[in-house]
Amino acid sequence: MIYVSRKEHFNAAHKLYNPAWTKEKNESVFGPCANENWHGHNYDLIVTVKGKPDPETGFVIDLKKLSNLIQDEVIEKLDHKNLNLDVPFMKGKMASTEILTKEIWQILAPGISGITNYGQLHSVKLYETPRNFVEYFGE
Amino acid sequence: MIYVSRKEHFNAAHKLYNPAWTKEKNESVFGPCANENWHGHNYDLIVTVKGKPDPETGFVIDLKKLSNLIQDEVIEKLDHKNLNLDVPFMKGKMASTEILTKEIWQILAPGISGITNYGQLHSVKLYETPRNFVEYFGE
Amino acid sequence: MIYVSRKEHFNAAHKLYNPAWTKEKNESVFGPCANENWHGHNYDLIVTVKGKPDPETGFVIDLKKLSNLIQDEVIEKLDHKNLNLDVPFMKGKMASTEILTKEIWQILAPGISGITNYGQLHSVKLYETPRNFVEYFGE
Amino acid sequence: MIYVSRKEHFNAAHKLYNPAWTKEKNESVFGPCANENWHGHNYDLIVTVKGKPDPETGFVIDLKKLSNLIQDEVIEKLDHKNLNLDVPFMKGKMASTEILTKEIWQILAPGISGITNYGQLHSVKLYETPRNFVEYFGE
Amino acid sequence: MIYVSRKEHFNAAHKLYNPAWTKEKNESVFGPCANENWHGHNYDLIVTVKGKPDPETGFVIDLKKLSNLIQDEVIEKLDHKNLNLDVPFMKGKMASTEILTKEIWQILAPGISGITNYGQLHSVKLYETPRNFVEYFGE
Amino acid sequence: MIYVSRKEHFNAAHKLYNPAWTKEKNESVFGPCANENWHGHNYDLIVTVKGKPDPETGFVIDLKKLSNLIQDEVIEKLDHKNLNLDVPFMKGKMASTEILTKEIWQILAPGISGITNYGQLHSVKLYETPRNFVEYFGE
Repeated sequence: MIYVSRKEHFNAAHKLYNPAWTKEKNESVFGPCANENWHGHNYDLIVTVKGKPDPETGFVIDLKKLSNLIQDEVIEKLDHKNLNLDVPFMKGKMASTEILTKEIWQILAPGISGITNYGQLHSVKLYETPRNFVEYFGE
Repeated sequence: MIYVSRKEHFNAAHKLYNPAWTKEKNESVFGPCANENWHGHNYDLIVTVKGKPDPETGFVIDLKKLSNLIQDEVIEKLDHKNLNLDVPFMKGKMASTEILTKEIWQILAPGISGITNYGQLHSVKLYETPRNFVEYFGE
Repeated sequence: MIYVSRKEHFNAAHKLYNPAWTKEKNESVFGPCANENWHGHNYDLIVTVKGKPDPETGFVIDLKKLSNLIQDEVIEKLDHKNLNLDVPFMKGKMASTEILTKEIWQILAPGISGITNYGQLHSVKLYETPRNFVEYFGE
Repeated sequence: MIYVSRKEHFNAAHKLYNPAWTKEKNESVFGPCANENWHGHNYDLIVTVKGKPDPETGFVIDLKKLSNLIQDEVIEKLDHKNLNLDVPFMKGKMASTEILTKEIWQILAPGISGITNYGQLHSVKLYETPRNFVEYFGE
Repeated sequence: MIYVSRKEHFNAAHKLYNPAWTKEKNESVFGPCANENWHGHNYDLIVTVKGKPDPETGFVIDLKKLSNLIQDEVIEKLDHKNLNLDVPFMKGKMASTEILTKEIWQILAPGISGITNYGQLHSVKLYETPRNFVEYFGE
Repeated sequence: MIYVSRKEHFNAAHKLYNPAWTKEKNESVFGPCANENWHGHNYDLIVTVKGKPDPETGFVIDLKKLSNLIQDEVIEKLDHKNLNLDVPFMKGKMASTEILTKEIWQILAPGISGITNYGQLHSVKLYETPRNFVEYFGE
């Protein structure tokens, strides 16, 4: 079993805000992350696929195809967007890195099976900043 | 002459939008950067002071004092903010990295003269992303 | 299960020196790391907490609280210190990155349980340099 | 169990090319990576050893010895080389990062057992670029 | 005057080899860099444009246009190529980072004047590795 | 004129302490940097040489020779050392990054003239941490 990773990036705005709470409670829990006028990040996204190399190519997955899939299914929907307002799959959800990472997994898992017979999605790792990051393994 | 630098960081939302133009012209010129719902970045800020070392301390400037100055005068006003809406010194200006870098220079130059007798502001360098960045030397 | 990480840093002096050995044996085994006048490093520390997101916040753990905990319980005791002389929990132990990483785990594990009901300490990763680093998972 | 890692690097040329295929099929599958005149990379290699610290040294493995082993057994054979033409253990194999990572594991596993009684090889991670990388755990 | 920079990257093979010399002299002067079977690098390229911001956009240069220019005029001709064999503007020249940096300047200077009225090329910086790099200011 | 740079690194202990002052004044001015038991850093050192490429090699300076010079004249004297106690050229001087950078310049300038006829020392840049760094141009 080999683990192959591809790193991509996108820039987005968001806020942490629970609409079931008062503004005061949001500010008390989330601090400056609840700023109603938004803030934003340069996100780095690392997608890891595990499998056995195809004996004809030496590839678990063609990283060009993986990059294209991530671009089309994830980056296109998140880059230069507002995570709370512009992203259909985040509607009604908290725009935390934890939730976003899980959603990206749900989107990519079937697509990866469609572009390789030798591997499957292993993990999605999302850096909100170089100091804060999240990883999800699908369960 | 010695050049001493301190790196800080902040996260902010912004959009590139000229209010004298139509929405269509803004989208045509600025592309996804004109998204009316904003996007954002993790900005890295490098402030460089030039001077001669104080013979008693070996310092051109005490980097702890410089860090505190940058925090109080710049980071406090930009971190987790919307550059177009929340920042008094950016009101009525384009929220480009170029303009922001010049404004940060204007703020820091007098403050640095207040915390060292041995140096003066040399440059302000601002990374909007690891791939896009701007430097200003005050003239 | 989601894995959430926070990166912090500290600067410290240390030497590798087994007091049960002669100076010659220490120098033979540890080379320049046994320099009796010390050397030092910029350490990077990554703390990972695993758990399920709190449905109200989208957080496994509030990273601001985690950062504060690491600052108070670990960084405060290690930053600008001598690992062999100044750090109570390292007294009588080898000041290797391996041992330090295990000690940081022991300190943080109970504290993390105190600031989240949704996660627990998963790993402590400590970079002595960008080329030498250690990770510990608690067992 | 503690996981100790060492990072090294080398520069090499290669191409992705299956000699059982026509030139057209190689170009169709591998794109510019099949350029018959080669291309190349700065590879970063991270070797992780797991074990218990030796109570006398605090080390799972002496990282100076591990670095020397990686230099002698791997870097010496790959640095400033052509992976397809110059490297005996890659002859007849696809010069993909996946295959190279597995081969490096095979070389290092016995050598590591020879320089520590307290640890064994855990993983080999190879960055072809900062955006494309592979990890192998030996099975 | 503001300095605006854009970072791009490419991967290429090369060797350092003076055809006027014997193979022995080449190996004596260039060491492993003269390997007749080539080696390669991940090059990072930073292009800096200096000027005054356009008052309507806040831009010295549109970084999307600058990125496209670098892609079309430089990256397209260097990425996944052999610098000695595949690159018309390097024919008959030493494939050193110094010479390549000067050639990239010659290519980009007129193109940049074509995409902005507010700035001109200031410098080209080329990283052969994170440890070896070159900068050229046009004179 | 081309600017060619080489990056090296070393690890050292130091403290900021003016022996003409009381312990209280040292602690008041230098804070935790005055810890009498020392602290330390992973220093990154970037040496830049400017000149014209030798037409026979394409080199302003052979970076292998420059690396060897820096190793022999600088790194050998600083790595795994105490800057206040172990380094002859720092005796009686403040162990600040500013002073150390100037001293490194004095050491390297004549040596560089000895290994190239095409260039001379342009600058020495020293990172004490990724956030604090100093550059000196020789005057």
